[in-house]
Amino acid sequence: MANRFRHPHINFLNVLGILGAFIFYLGFALLAPMFIDLIYDEGIWHTFLYSASIAFILGGALYYFFKPEEELRIREGFLVVSLTWLFLSLVGALPFVISGILPSYTDAVFETMSGLTTTGATIFGGETSSGFLNPNIESLPMSILFWRSLSHWLGGMGIIVLTLAILPLLGVGGMQLFRAESPGPTTDKLTPHIQETAKLLWEVYVAFTGLEFLLLWVHPSMDWFEAINHAFATLATGGFSTKDASIQAFDSVYIDSVITLFMFLAGISFAMHFRLLRGDIKSFFNNRETRFYTLITLISIFIVSLSLWLFNEYSVGDALRYGSFQVVSIVTTTGFGTDNYELWYSLGSVFLFLLFFTGGCAGSTGGGVKMIRWLIIIRNTFREFKQMVHPKAVLPIRIGDKTIDHHIQRTVLSFFVLYLIIFGLGAFIIATMGFDLESAIGASIACLGNIGPGWGEFGPTDNYAQIPYIGKWVLIFMMMIGRLELFTVLLIFTPAFWKQ
Amino acid sequence: MANRFRHPHINFLNVLGILGAFIFYLGFALLAPMFIDLIYDEGIWHTFLYSASIAFILGGALYYFFKPEEELRIREGFLVVSLTWLFLSLVGALPFVISGILPSYTDAVFETMSGLTTTGATIFGGETSSGFLNPNIESLPMSILFWRSLSHWLGGMGIIVLTLAILPLLGVGGMQLFRAESPGPTTDKLTPHIQETAKLLWEVYVAFTGLEFLLLWVHPSMDWFEAINHAFATLATGGFSTKDASIQAFDSVYIDSVITLFMFLAGISFAMHFRLLRGDIKSFFNNRETRFYTLITLISIFIVSLSLWLFNEYSVGDALRYGSFQVVSIVTTTGFGTDNYELWYSLGSVFLFLLFFTGGCAGSTGGGVKMIRWLIIIRNTFREFKQMVHPKAVLPIRIGDKTIDHHIQRTVLSFFVLYLIIFGLGAFIIATMGFDLESAIGASIACLGNIGPGWGEFGPTDNYAQIPYIGKWVLIFMMMIGRLELFTVLLIFTPAFWKQ
Ligand SMILES: [K+]
Ligand SMILES: [K+]
Repeated sequence: MANRFRHPHINFLNVLGILGAFIFYLGFALLAPMFIDLIYDEGIWHTFLYSASIAFILGGALYYFFKPEEELRIREGFLVVSLTWLFLSLVGALPFVISGILPSYTDAVFETMSGLTTTGATIFGGETSSGFLNPNIESLPMSILFWRSLSHWLGGMGIIVLTLAILPLLGVGGMQLFRAESPGPTTDKLTPHIQETAKLLWEVYVAFTGLEFLLLWVHPSMDWFEAINHAFATLATGGFSTKDASIQAFDSVYIDSVITLFMFLAGISFAMHFRLLRGDIKSFFNNRETRFYTLITLISIFIVSLSLWLFNEYSVGDALRYGSFQVVSIVTTTGFGTDNYELWYSLGSVFLFLLFFTGGCAGSTGGGVKMIRWLIIIRNTFREFKQMVHPKAVLPIRIGDKTIDHHIQRTVLSFFVLYLIIFGLGAFIIATMGFDLESAIGASIACLGNIGPGWGEFGPTDNYAQIPYIGKWVLIFMMMIGRLELFTVLLIFTPAFWKQ
Repeated sequence: MANRFRHPHINFLNVLGILGAFIFYLGFALLAPMFIDLIYDEGIWHTFLYSASIAFILGGALYYFFKPEEELRIREGFLVVSLTWLFLSLVGALPFVISGILPSYTDAVFETMSGLTTTGATIFGGETSSGFLNPNIESLPMSILFWRSLSHWLGGMGIIVLTLAILPLLGVGGMQLFRAESPGPTTDKLTPHIQETAKLLWEVYVAFTGLEFLLLWVHPSMDWFEAINHAFATLATGGFSTKDASIQAFDSVYIDSVITLFMFLAGISFAMHFRLLRGDIKSFFNNRETRFYTLITLISIFIVSLSLWLFNEYSVGDALRYGSFQVVSIVTTTGFGTDNYELWYSLGSVFLFLLFFTGGCAGSTGGGVKMIRWLIIIRNTFREFKQMVHPKAVLPIRIGDKTIDHHIQRTVLSFFVLYLIIFGLGAFIIATMGFDLESAIGASIACLGNIGPGWGEFGPTDNYAQIPYIGKWVLIFMMMIGRLELFTVLLIFTPAFWKQ
C-alpha cells in the first residue's frame, strides 16, 4: 500500500479525511436514540453515548489529521462514496453490540448496512448459524428500534443527494441523465453544488416525513413513536418496522392506505417533488419516468388484485387493499408487508416476483433497476427492431423531449446486464451454503435490489438470521453495491481504477 | 390482408412458394419412419405415407402455384425463416395424430416443434389437462420414436445453415459476426451462398453423426436403432431419447462418455469443425468462442463435480461422470439426463440452473444465449469500467484479432436483455396457469433456451403433458423464438416491419 499513498490521481489522506467528517456527523445521529432511551427509561442510554463518543473521536481524529482539501478528484469521489456506506455501517453497528443485544458484530453490521442502504432485511427474530437466538423485533428496546429507523431515514436522504447531485457528476450507470433535473446551482464545482442541492431536497424530505408522521399519529393504533419510526422507514423505502408482523400488525385500512400513498411518493424522484412544491406542476406530470412508474404500478395493482380476487377468494376491497399495498411496497423496494405473498396463487405471486426487478424512479429513495432504465431498455428494444428493417439509419432514443446519448444507452444496457449477472452470482453464493433455488434467488435479489424480504426461507415472514456469517458479508456487500448503482463500488475492484 | 399482398417490400406469394418447397422436402423426411415401421412391422406405415402425401401435395401445390423468384428480399427472408419452423411443425405433427397416438393436435405440434427446434421437451408420459394419458416414450412405436429423433436431426442441420449462412445476411442479434467465418463462397447473392455453405456443413454434420452412431452401436446395450436415434439427438443437441429415463437407462460409463464428447462437439460451431477437418487446426484452437466455451465447460464440471463429491457423497469417479454429463448436457442445451439434478445439494443444482442461461457456440446446434454473446457481454462490462476512469476515450472491444463494431455490441446487449424479458414474461404466463415459481421459470427457460427439461413440475424426470393447451402454444412459440434468435420472429410483430 505504501506507494499507493503516492497515487497521482488519488490522495488517500483526503479520502480518509472526508470519511472522518461523515463519521463525526454520524455521532450526532447516534445521540438521538439516547434521548429515546431516556424518555422510555430503558437504561441503555450509555450505549448510545459510548457509540457517539467513538464516532466523534474516530471521525474527528481522521478529519483533523487528514484535513481534506476543498476539491475532490473523480477517483477520490468513487472511493468516498463507496467507503462512506461501509464505514458508517461499521460504526453505526456499535449500539447493537455495546448494548449486548447482538453478540455478533457481523449481524450488527448487517442490520446497519440494511438500514443505511434502506434495504430493511433483518437478522432479528431467528437463530444464527452459531446457535444464538437473535431477539424478536418487538422485544427490542425503543432506542434500538429508533436507531434502525433512523438509519433508514439518513440512508435515504444520503441516496437522494447521491443520485441527484454526485453520481451524475461521476457518470455512473447513466445517472448523467438527471444532472439537468436536480435543483441547486448548475455550477461544475462539486462541493457548492452538492451542498445547495442537498439543502433543498432535505427540506422536501423532511416535509414529507413530517406529513406522514402526522397522518399516522392521528390513528389510534399508532402512538407517536410508532408513527415516527414508520414515517422514517416509508420515506426511505426502507421497510424496518417496529412490529414482528410488519404493517399487518396494525390491521388498519387507514394505515395501509397512508403508507401505500407515501411509499408511492417516496418512489418518485425528489427533484420532481421539489419542482412540484415550487408550483411547477407541468414538469411533474410531464416527466416520462414518473408517468411510466405510475403506469407500471397501476397495471401491477390490477393484475395482482385480480389474481387475489379470482383465485384467493379475497373480496374486491381486500384484493385491492392487499394487492396495492404489496405491489407498491415491492415496486418502490420498501418491503413492508401486510400479507404473505408466498401463499398467493401463482399468478399473483410470480408476478410480484417479477416486480422485484423493477424499482422506483431514479432520484427517489427506491432501489432496484429503476424505472428510467426500464424505459430506456424498452425503447432500445423497439429501436433494435426498427434498425433491422433500416440497417443504415441512425435511430435516436427519445424520452420526452430529451434524446438519450448513445453512450448513456449503452451504459444503461450494461448496467442491467451487470445487475442480473451479480444477481445470479449472489444466488449461487447463497446456494453454496445449502439454501434451495427459490431462497437463494430471493435473498440475492432482495438484497441487491434493497427490497428486504425475499422468498423461500427468506420470505416475508422470515428473516436473515440463519445465514452463515460469510454469507451475511456477501449480502452486506450486495446491499451496498446495489444501493450505490453497482459501478460506483465495483469500479474500485478493477485494474483500470488503480492504473496510474 | 388484401392490400398486404401488394406490400412494396414483401411478395407474400414468393414467401408461400418457398415454404411450399420446404414442406415438399419434409415429405421425403416423413417417408423415412415408414421404412422403420416396415422393418419392425408395427403396422402404422400408412400413417407416414399419408403424412408424406399431404406434405407432397400441399408443398407441391404451394410451390407450383406461387413459383418463387430467385431473389429474396430482406423482409421476405424474415418471414420465410420464421414461418418455416412453424409450417414444418404443423405438417410434421401429422404422424402423431394420424396414428392415433396423440388425440390432441396441440400436443403433436408441441412435440414436433420441440423436435425441430432441438428442444427435446416432451408431452409423452403424463396426463394432459383434458385428462388423456399420453403414452410413455418406451411404449411408442419405433417409427414414431425415429420421427422424433429425425425431427431433431433435421432441425439441427437447419439451424447450422440458418446461423452461419442466413442470419448473418439478415443482421439478426449480432450474427453478422460469423459471416466471414462460414465456409462457402463469399458472394453477396443469398441463394448460391446458402446452398454452397449448406452442402459443406452438411457433410461435417453427417460425418459426426455417423461416427457417434458407430461408437454407440458397438456397445452391447445399444442396438443400431437406439444408436442412430441417440446420435441424431446428440448432434442436434436435441435431447429426445428412446427411453423414459433418458441416457440413465443405459447406465454405462462408456455410453455416457461418448455422448458427453459428442454433445460437447455439437456445441462448437460447425464452421470451426469444417475448418478443423480441412486441416486448419490453428484457427480452430485460436477461436475465442471455442476457447471460452471449453473454459466455461471445464470450470462448471469442476464446480458441479466437487459439489457432488463433497455434499452428495458421490465417489470421485461418479462425481466426474454425472457432473460432466449433466454440465455438458445443459451448457450445450441438449437436455439428456443421467441424474436428477433437482436432488443435488443446492451448490451443484443452483449452479446448473445458472448454466441454463449459457448455451453453446453460435453456429453449433446449441440454443440459449450462446458463448460469443457472453464473451462480448463480459468484455463490454470491463470496458464500461474503463470508460468511467477515461470518460472521453473511445474504447473498442476486441475478440481475438477482431474488433466488434459498436452496432453489434449494442445488438448483443439488446439481445440478452430481450432474452431475459421474454424469459420473465414466459414464466409469468406459465404461472397464471397455477404453476409455482420454480416450475414456471424452469419451463420458461427450458423452452426459450431449447434445453428441454426444466425444474419443479417440469424437472428432468417429468414432462410437459399437464400444461393447459393455451400454455403449450405459448411454449411452442417460445421454443420457436428462442431457436430463431428472438429478433427474427419478433420483428414480424412490430409495426416497423409492416410499414410500407
Ligand atoms: K427496502
Ligand atoms: K435440447
